Amino acid sequence: MMKGIIKVGPVPGATWREDLPQPRPGEGEILVRVKAAAICGTDLHIYNWTPWAEKRIKPPMVFGHEFSGEVVEVGPGVKRVKPGDVVAGETHIGCGICRQCNTGNVHICEQMKIIGVHTPGCFAEYIAVPEGCAWVLDKSMSFEHGALLEPMGVAMHGVEAAVVGGKDVLVLGCGPIGLMGVGICRVFGADKIIASEPFMRKLELAVTMGATLTVQAGKEDVVAVVKNATSGRGVDVVIDYSGNEQAINDGLAALAKGGRMVLVGLPDRRISLDLVDGIIYKEATVIGVTGRTMYGTWYECRRVLDSGRFELEPVIGGRYPLKEFDKAFALLMGGAPGKMLLIP
Amino acid sequence: MMKGIIKVGPVPGATWREDLPQPRPGEGEILVRVKAAAICGTDLHIYNWTPWAEKRIKPPMVFGHEFSGEVVEVGPGVKRVKPGDVVAGETHIGCGICRQCNTGNVHICEQMKIIGVHTPGCFAEYIAVPEGCAWVLDKSMSFEHGALLEPMGVAMHGVEAAVVGGKDVLVLGCGPIGLMGVGICRVFGADKIIASEPFMRKLELAVTMGATLTVQAGKEDVVAVVKNATSGRGVDVVIDYSGNEQAINDGLAALAKGGRMVLVGLPDRRISLDLVDGIIYKEATVIGVTGRTMYGTWYECRRVLDSGRFELEPVIGGRYPLKEFDKAFALLMGGAPGKMLLIP
Amino acid sequence: MMKGIIKVGPVPGATWREDLPQPRPGEGEILVRVKAAAICGTDLHIYNWTPWAEKRIKPPMVFGHEFSGEVVEVGPGVKRVKPGDVVAGETHIGCGICRQCNTGNVHICEQMKIIGVHTPGCFAEYIAVPEGCAWVLDKSMSFEHGALLEPMGVAMHGVEAAVVGGKDVLVLGCGPIGLMGVGICRVFGADKIIASEPFMRKLELAVTMGATLTVQAGKEDVVAVVKNATSGRGVDVVIDYSGNEQAINDGLAALAKGGRMVLVGLPDRRISLDLVDGIIYKEATVIGVTGRTMYGTWYECRRVLDSGRFELEPVIGGRYPLKEFDKAFALLMGGAPGKMLLIP
Amino acid sequence: MMKGIIKVGPVPGATWREDLPQPRPGEGEILVRVKAAAICGTDLHIYNWTPWAEKRIKPPMVFGHEFSGEVVEVGPGVKRVKPGDVVAGETHIGCGICRQCNTGNVHICEQMKIIGVHTPGCFAEYIAVPEGCAWVLDKSMSFEHGALLEPMGVAMHGVEAAVVGGKDVLVLGCGPIGLMGVGICRVFGADKIIASEPFMRKLELAVTMGATLTVQAGKEDVVAVVKNATSGRGVDVVIDYSGNEQAINDGLAALAKGGRMVLVGLPDRRISLDLVDGIIYKEATVIGVTGRTMYGTWYECRRVLDSGRFELEPVIGGRYPLKEFDKAFALLMGGAPGKMLLIP
Repeated sequence: MMKGIIKVGPVPGATWREDLPQPRPGEGEILVRVKAAAICGTDLHIYNWTPWAEKRIKPPMVFGHEFSGEVVEVGPGVKRVKPGDVVAGETHIGCGICRQCNTGNVHICEQMKIIGVHTPGCFAEYIAVPEGCAWVLDKSMSFEHGALLEPMGVAMHGVEAAVVGGKDVLVLGCGPIGLMGVGICRVFGADKIIASEPFMRKLELAVTMGATLTVQAGKEDVVAVVKNATSGRGVDVVIDYSGNEQAINDGLAALAKGGRMVLVGLPDRRISLDLVDGIIYKEATVIGVTGRTMYGTWYECRRVLDSGRFELEPVIGGRYPLKEFDKAFALLMGGAPGKMLLIP
Repeated sequence: MMKGIIKVGPVPGATWREDLPQPRPGEGEILVRVKAAAICGTDLHIYNWTPWAEKRIKPPMVFGHEFSGEVVEVGPGVKRVKPGDVVAGETHIGCGICRQCNTGNVHICEQMKIIGVHTPGCFAEYIAVPEGCAWVLDKSMSFEHGALLEPMGVAMHGVEAAVVGGKDVLVLGCGPIGLMGVGICRVFGADKIIASEPFMRKLELAVTMGATLTVQAGKEDVVAVVKNATSGRGVDVVIDYSGNEQAINDGLAALAKGGRMVLVGLPDRRISLDLVDGIIYKEATVIGVTGRTMYGTWYECRRVLDSGRFELEPVIGGRYPLKEFDKAFALLMGGAPGKMLLIP
Repeated sequence: MMKGIIKVGPVPGATWREDLPQPRPGEGEILVRVKAAAICGTDLHIYNWTPWAEKRIKPPMVFGHEFSGEVVEVGPGVKRVKPGDVVAGETHIGCGICRQCNTGNVHICEQMKIIGVHTPGCFAEYIAVPEGCAWVLDKSMSFEHGALLEPMGVAMHGVEAAVVGGKDVLVLGCGPIGLMGVGICRVFGADKIIASEPFMRKLELAVTMGATLTVQAGKEDVVAVVKNATSGRGVDVVIDYSGNEQAINDGLAALAKGGRMVLVGLPDRRISLDLVDGIIYKEATVIGVTGRTMYGTWYECRRVLDSGRFELEPVIGGRYPLKEFDKAFALLMGGAPGKMLLIP
Repeated sequence: MMKGIIKVGPVPGATWREDLPQPRPGEGEILVRVKAAAICGTDLHIYNWTPWAEKRIKPPMVFGHEFSGEVVEVGPGVKRVKPGDVVAGETHIGCGICRQCNTGNVHICEQMKIIGVHTPGCFAEYIAVPEGCAWVLDKSMSFEHGALLEPMGVAMHGVEAAVVGGKDVLVLGCGPIGLMGVGICRVFGADKIIASEPFMRKLELAVTMGATLTVQAGKEDVVAVVKNATSGRGVDVVIDYSGNEQAINDGLAALAKGGRMVLVGLPDRRISLDLVDGIIYKEATVIGVTGRTMYGTWYECRRVLDSGRFELEPVIGGRYPLKEFDKAFALLMGGAPGKMLLIP
């Protein structure tokens, strides 16, 4: 028996339970004592029971997929991980047999399963996951920071695709992932780092993470600010973490000729774009990325953390006992900046 | 005095004149006796006096920009080209001082001028152009084929960006440039070459140029045909020469995970796209290209023509004396396949 | 009990045995009934007991690593492969836990084991290998051709790194892998394909595979022939399958400015190079590749074979019952062209 | 008449003269009043009359090619530059008509001329150069720093090819260009920056420029130090500015699997390399670069200088009136660190 929160049925909200069955690790699986979890946008969909959630989630189910913890048991056939290891969770479960899995692209597996969506999640005391979903941490890292590595990997994957060293960069969206993206751009040697976001408190955090200029989307003219900051040329690189239609259009318009735009944020609908002036006439390259490479991105995250030039702490928006999840969800929905942590 | 056709004012059509002033080559310019010209989509805009033309063209003016001919005189300061040279015309006139011109990207000059749009065109007996607009031809090439090199360069530039060797490719749009794109894909070692286009006669030409499968857009389900031909995986590469919204959406949907889509055709309005499934989840790369690199693309065109594995002849849709331009324009507007040549 | 050949001790030659213990598939392993095997340069080292072999091989041991066969039994934990599958052998056994294995680069695993070098080989009736060493074949492929896929992958890996579509290519060395490299260059759309090799019979096979020009190394001046065939410019791409010092130097000298050279062949000693004129002043890129990516390269081989534009048959130099291995080895040492097959 | 130093004949040393003819700007040329010049390794060759110089230099001739100054006159046909402009000198004079010049690669022109080698140099009060050899400076930059931009471009070109953001880098050789390379690596976001060099005083400057670790070549085991600093993995990137055989071999041995090595320094003889373990088995990429792109690299240098994160001052090893050139040359030959400036 364990404590945790569960989606009981096809309605908004979630339920605290103290009598959940404790999972057992199967073949190739490990059992993790969850020490810290974090709330993702996906969890908001599930909590609020949006159409996105309705299509994918089969309650009753524990949800949540960003976590760290300690390995307490390993199932048969487990090779890399052992009891006592401290691990961060990798959300993606590749099928292991499709062409993507067979060519180093497990993170875009053709039959991908996602923890907390297709399999039971981490908003509980224990979670059992395939060994491949565990990234072993140095024990000097706090569990709270460990729970941020999965979304940090998303930020990193975007910056890696963008190649920012020595370049002027526009980062669109300063949620937790965008904020980490700003910080990684700084570590990776971006020249100007312009952060765009509607919420002032998030822009302030962007400055803490390393933004050299901020622009309040919705109030200011993003394209004009960027052009002005770059002698009219535009930025070499845009990374979109917002998924917002206006932001993406601003990004294309703010991009220099020959520039590169990376799309990470997920629009919730089709987006209308000016391909002629935004992409074709300026010979821009637009690159979509999703998740994190398994595990190239993880190695890069480790390196950035080891460099001492990047801080996760400012990204944490609040810490709550798991039982007080409702409070954390409410704050997030109110636009509170940073990542909300839940401690089982 | 020379003969030619001229846009006399802001109205549809064009006018044959036999008393046009013959241009003189200025500093750094050459005078070319036009031997063959070809009609581009841009010329259709000018002929029909669309809003696009109205914004850009200042009549009275000779238009047209695809041509070949013989150099009859060179102005002061000309270095590479000499009288007697046979040349094809490069449409783009770079400013020579902007950052693009200074970094090997003249073709996306920040102050670009275009022959037949900003300066007098080639639908006449003579044209004076900057030396940089001349690509010297081997005299074994016919003038008619020489007039096709500028659009061939557009096709080539798209294929170069696509990197098709050994890959499955979907070519969208089989106008003259798309047809040449199909032919270059074949020479460059594409595996499956699927051509999509609404007009059957153009699809037949696509087969002549090397398409291994055709799909009639508007009648058949392009995505289904592509998926079926590629074991459900989609093509590695899409090259869009159509600028058509449906085609571009089909292209993204037909692209394999990790695939690459090159945009060459110019949509005439904003386009609505599914970025999530079309680009982000499949980690696709979308690359805009325009015109031809000056002169990397020209060298590649020369090589493809020298290889003996590519034929320009099938791309020619008709040949007319320049004076009969109205007939050629009318045929084009009626959906006739291939490139229309005008012979002064 | 099974039949096969074995290196009995640290001396030249090999021994036919009919009483070898038949291997059993362990955890994650499969048992393959070998239907065709092929002799690699590595096997020559082992057969001749060179210093290379002395350092690596621990007799008594069955050697050989290029093979195809039928799966007759699978051990516990095997997921992708099942009894009755026809498979080709992948030689490399990754450790599964190093950084390379964890980032899609199993083929350069930091603790790599190689079939027939570190583990028992395929010159016998049966071989047990990890599931990851099996590439499932379409049953329409002959076993003989299946045994050639591992070396074909080496050829392919070199061509993939070279990016040959539309380019002039110099292929150095026309052993079986070089010959397959020539054929893949042709399929991938190389323009001129110049093959260099000392043995005339191998050059003849290179023409069969698609070389457009051959040059007899040692007799002719390779650089002069290449320059002459390319208007003095040199080739865009060089692929070295020879590992020969003179060949590699010729390759660098024959490379055009900005060109790309891929190194596949393994020199047996340090090589002296002119870095200034060969690499630096011409801004060349030199790329080392080894083995095949697992399994990206295998997918590409499948595609090339499916295209119908590439034939493996000409690469086969001879077929011998496994028991007559001495004859095959002797022919190879005498310079016989093509791949020698051994049929258990 | 003007003052300057001249190579009078085929013997070591150089001669101060006060009666040199003042050059006049020809067609497309500008006349520059030299305000600061710097001594390059090439100038040492000329000064010492090495075999390298003997093959290339035709005395009597003013030499020197790194300089800044003020434009005092422009010849006919000059377009970008005007009297009063402050400029840095670009050493390379492209022919303007070869394939490299025609494809954005003027810096590897097939008929390259070099200021101070093929045409009169800058160790004098005035120099006339083609307009293309002038990079206009912001007037806030000192002439002394302006004279360092040409070698800074060499350093930059190497770092650009290396792509160092977030990577561990080994910089071989800490002459002025290597030192600037270290500084640019830091600005471009390299993680560990390990500098290797025999002279301790140069290593101290490397730390000033941003090296995170130094290793004294010749005394310490470079490969061991690098491996130790990178958990045994080696560095992702090596940039060689030394041209030294041992250094280049150390670099290959210290490179991680899949790593990238950029060659900038010019060996004075053929170099013996272990291609198997150094390049092939680790799938390394080796890239040669020379000079600076014209003018992409110059734009990047401007950006780095504008960022305020890079200082040229530490690279200056000494300042001498032009007349005291012998002192500056003597110091350089004695191993003095940094760049020697000569002020006319």
